Amino acid sequence: MSVTHVVLFTWHGDAAADPAVVEGIADALRRFVRESDLPGLQSWTCGRDAGLAAGNAEFACVGVFDDVDAYTVYRDHPEHRRIIDEQIKPYIAERTAVQFTS
Amino acid sequence: MSVTHVVLFTWHGDAAADPAVVEGIADALRRFVRESDLPGLQSWTCGRDAGLAAGNAEFACVGVFDDVDAYTVYRDHPEHRRIIDEQIKPYIAERTAVQFTS
Repeated sequence: MSVTHVVLFTWHGDAAADPAVVEGIADALRRFVRESDLPGLQSWTCGRDAGLAAGNAEFACVGVFDDVDAYTVYRDHPEHRRIIDEQIKPYIAERTAVQFTS
Repeated sequence: MSVTHVVLFTWHGDAAADPAVVEGIADALRRFVRESDLPGLQSWTCGRDAGLAAGNAEFACVGVFDDVDAYTVYRDHPEHRRIIDEQIKPYIAERTAVQFTS
């Protein structure tokens, strides 16, 4: 049994106007995941929408964890919260998430 | 380089009222993925939101593919389209998707 966390964003402001702002968000998240102690993290990826379908959101993160505890360590990690507060929240137009077990 | 497809749903009608309807959708999708010839499919999971956060969507599917061609074979497979048309579309309140490379 694993827990998968999925979150999709659309942007406003600078993040909507400039792909480099979103790449900065992606780089900060990748660095956080790479350099932090996140026990029970199985896989983690993020990226900008590839433009294959009309009406899509603009950015996604997908993390797979051993269990809910491992997910909450990731969710609540201080560096994760810092990136969310300083780099993500100012630019969120819409955010949609699901966590599911499989 | 892989292509990750993520789609989140909220439901209305019978799917919103009865978890068994959503489990029927999940079972049909799992059977399609398990029993179909889907070259370049690396992983595929789906599930109902676990209720860990307020404001979440209600259901997610996450597929990882070798490339865009592998994703489009999955997307356009006749059995997939049948499940979408007959079992999913009647109950969609909101649908949000992203495809990204990583």
